Amino acid sequence: MKKKAPEVDKNIPNSSIYEDAPHLHVTDRARENMQAEKNCTLNFRPVVRDLAANPGADMIRYARGKENMIWMGQGEGDAPTPDFIVNAAVKAMQDGLMFYGPALGSPYLRTALSGYYQRIYDQDIGEHRIFVTQSGSTAMSIALSTLLDKGDEVVAVTPIWKNLLGAIELMQANTLEVAMNCDQNGKWSLDLGKLFDTCTENTRVILLVSPSNPTGWCASKEEMRAILDFARERGIWIVADEVYNRLVYDGLRAPSFLDIAKPDDQILIVNSFSKTWAMTGWRLGWIVGPETAEEKIRDVAIYNNLCPQPFTQRGAIAALDQGEDFIKSQINLWRSNRDLIKARFDSMGRIQYTPSDSTFYAFFRVDGEDDCIALCKRLVDEAQVLLSPGCAFGEDARGYARMCFAVSEERLLEALDRIEKVL
Amino acid sequence: MKKKAPEVDKNIPNSSIYEDAPHLHVTDRARENMQAEKNCTLNFRPVVRDLAANPGADMIRYARGKENMIWMGQGEGDAPTPDFIVNAAVKAMQDGLMFYGPALGSPYLRTALSGYYQRIYDQDIGEHRIFVTQSGSTAMSIALSTLLDKGDEVVAVTPIWKNLLGAIELMQANTLEVAMNCDQNGKWSLDLGKLFDTCTENTRVILLVSPSNPTGWCASKEEMRAILDFARERGIWIVADEVYNRLVYDGLRAPSFLDIAKPDDQILIVNSFSKTWAMTGWRLGWIVGPETAEEKIRDVAIYNNLCPQPFTQRGAIAALDQGEDFIKSQINLWRSNRDLIKARFDSMGRIQYTPSDSTFYAFFRVDGEDDCIALCKRLVDEAQVLLSPGCAFGEDARGYARMCFAVSEERLLEALDRIEKVL
Repeated sequence: MKKKAPEVDKNIPNSSIYEDAPHLHVTDRARENMQAEKNCTLNFRPVVRDLAANPGADMIRYARGKENMIWMGQGEGDAPTPDFIVNAAVKAMQDGLMFYGPALGSPYLRTALSGYYQRIYDQDIGEHRIFVTQSGSTAMSIALSTLLDKGDEVVAVTPIWKNLLGAIELMQANTLEVAMNCDQNGKWSLDLGKLFDTCTENTRVILLVSPSNPTGWCASKEEMRAILDFARERGIWIVADEVYNRLVYDGLRAPSFLDIAKPDDQILIVNSFSKTWAMTGWRLGWIVGPETAEEKIRDVAIYNNLCPQPFTQRGAIAALDQGEDFIKSQINLWRSNRDLIKARFDSMGRIQYTPSDSTFYAFFRVDGEDDCIALCKRLVDEAQVLLSPGCAFGEDARGYARMCFAVSEERLLEALDRIEKVL
Repeated sequence: MKKKAPEVDKNIPNSSIYEDAPHLHVTDRARENMQAEKNCTLNFRPVVRDLAANPGADMIRYARGKENMIWMGQGEGDAPTPDFIVNAAVKAMQDGLMFYGPALGSPYLRTALSGYYQRIYDQDIGEHRIFVTQSGSTAMSIALSTLLDKGDEVVAVTPIWKNLLGAIELMQANTLEVAMNCDQNGKWSLDLGKLFDTCTENTRVILLVSPSNPTGWCASKEEMRAILDFARERGIWIVADEVYNRLVYDGLRAPSFLDIAKPDDQILIVNSFSKTWAMTGWRLGWIVGPETAEEKIRDVAIYNNLCPQPFTQRGAIAALDQGEDFIKSQINLWRSNRDLIKARFDSMGRIQYTPSDSTFYAFFRVDGEDDCIALCKRLVDEAQVLLSPGCAFGEDARGYARMCFAVSEERLLEALDRIEKVL
C-alpha cells in the first residue's frame, strides 16, 4: 500500500476549495464569519459565552486555505499511521466489527493495554483499571467531569495546552496556575513548594502534564512521589496527562505515576494513541484509574459518548503489539530533527532555544518578538510556516512559539530556510 | 467483500473468553465486580457518586457471555454497515486521511449534509449551521453542555432513553418529565398543555425526541409549531433529537423542526449516522443549529473531544450520497418484521403491543409482568433473548419492554418462538 499525502477527491462537491486535514482549507466566507461569530449573542450558558478560544486553534484556522504551507503548529507529524495498524483496522471493518461496543472499550484492547504496561512499564495494571475512550481529549473530559464540581479548584502546572484549561472552564471549576521556572540556560523546573503552597482547601485536583507539552520538561520519580505524598495527605486527586510518556530521547519512556502509586490511589492517568503511534485522527485514548472507579467512569462515559469505535480499537491492539520498531524509528528521526533545529536556530542568532529530552516540540523565543501571535501570523503570511503561539499554553508562555518537528528532514530544512529569511 | 458476523480473532490473547460487540463477553471476574463497584467509595463529585446507571446498559452486561443469545436490546440491527460506506472509509484510510481535522467536521461532510437537507428535506441549511460530532451521543452532550448550568431546568417528554436524562444529570441540571399518554388502543400522544404548564421560569430547554425512542410516536408539524411558538415567546431553547427521523413506514421522513423553524431560532437538532445507515459503531453524529452558534459550539467541541475522525467522515459522505436504496431496503424489512411481531404477539394472547409508524422498536407490555427487569432477566436466562427493560426509558415506562426488530426475519422468528415458549 503506497502512502501519500491526502488528495482532493474530485467526486466531492467544491473539492477545489476544500481539502481535508492536515492541509485543510475553508471558504473565504467561513473566514469572514470567524470574526462575526465572536460576537455571538445567542442565549448560551454564561460560561460558554465567556469561553476563551484556543489561540493555537485560531492560528490553525488563520493558516487554512493559504498556499504552500508547512504545518508545524499542531501536535502531530506529517507521516500517516503505519500500515500494520491501518491494515488491522481495515480487516476489522471488513469483518463487520462495526457495532456498538462496551463503553470502556473492547476487553481485547483493555487486555492488550494491560500487557503493554507489564512489558514497557513493568507494572501490573489489571484491565479493570484501564478505561478506553473516544480520544485522549475525551479521556481528559471524562476524568475532569468525574471529579469537578462548579467552584472546585484545579491547581495546574503551566505552561499547559489551552485545551486542558478550557475543559476545566467548561466544568465551571477554577484553575490556579503554577508557572514552572525557566532558568538562564533555558532549563525548565517545577518549584514543588510553590505548587503545594498554591493548593487551598478547595483544591480537588492537581493537574500535571509530564512530559510537558510544550516545554518537554519531565517530572522525576522523586518529584512525582512528593506530589503524590502531598495529594494523599490532603485528599486531593491527581490528574496526570502522560500522553507524551513514550516520546523521550533517553530510555524507553518517561517516569510515570504508575511507578510509585498504589492501585487505589486517587489518580487518573490520561493517555492517547495519537502521538506515540501517529494515530492523531483515530481519536482513541484511555484512562488508568483505581479499579473501584470502573463502574462510575463507565456511567460517565456512557452519558458522554456511549462507547468508542470497535474497528479502530483493533488498530490500537496492533499498535501495542507491533509498534516498538515504529516508535524507535520516529524517535531517531525526531532526535536528529531536534539537533538540527538547535544548530540552525543558534546560527540565526536571534532565537533562544534549549532542546529538551522529550516530546516533538521546540519551544523557543525570538529576541525582540514579544507578541507571539503577531510573530506566528507573520510566519504564516511571509514564510508559509505554521507554528503555535506561546499564549496557547498560558499567560506565562506568552512570547514563546512552539514548533512541532515531527516532520521529514526535507520539510524541516525547508521550514528553517523560510523562517531564517523572514527573521 | 463477503460480510459475516464478527468472529473471535485467534491471534488475540484470551480470545476464547472475549468477543467483541454485538456478542460481547466479559470475564466472570468482571461480572462479579459489577456489584462490588456499585459500592464505590471514591471521592468523586457528588453528582457522579449518585449517578443512576442505565438499566438497559446493565441488562446488556447481564446478557454478555451467555451462550446463543439473540440481541434485541440495543438500538441497532444485526447487519453490518453496507460495503459502499465501508469502502469509502477504507479508501480514505489507505490514502492517509488520518490526521487531526476541523473540530466541527470536514467541510466536505458539512457540505454533503447541506446537500442532503436540500434533497430529502427541501430545506436550505448552509454548512455553517451543521456541526459534525464524534457521535450522536456526543452531539447531545455538546448541545446540553452549551446550554445548561447547574440548577437549570430541562422539560423532557417521556418515555425517553435514560442516557439523555443521564447527560442532563451530569450537567447538574434538573429534569421535569412530561409523560406522554397512551390510550386504550396503545396509541401515544403528547398533551401540549401539560408540556407548557410544566415549564417554569427556570426552564432553559425543552427536550423532545421525535420520532420517539422507544414509543415510535412522532410529533406532527402542527405540534412542533406550537412548541416552537411557546419556546420563542418564553426564550426557551429546544433540543430536538431527530436521530430516528428517516425510520418511518410512510413517506421519506418524519416531520422535522427544520420544516418550520427560522435559521436563527434557538433550536439545536441532534442527529446521527448510526440508525439510518447501520453505522452504530462508527460514532458519528451532527448538530444543526443557528449559524451564529458555530464559533461557540466549536470551542465546546474542541474542549470536549477536539475533533471527529477524518476517515469515517468519508464513509458518511458515501452514506449520504448513495444510501437511499439501502434505507429503503431496511425499511421494507423492518415493516415486514413489525407486522410479523404484531401477528405473533396477538396470537400469544398476553402481550399488549400497538405497532407504530416509526423506529425499529416494538414497545409492549406483558399481562401480569409488571417488573420489567425481572421479565427481561428471565428472557435472557430462559429464552436467550435480550430486550431492553421499560424502566430504561423513565419511570412511566416501567412495566414495558423494548424489542429492536432490526434483525433478519430468520432471527426474528427464532426470537419470537423462544419468547412464546417462556411466556
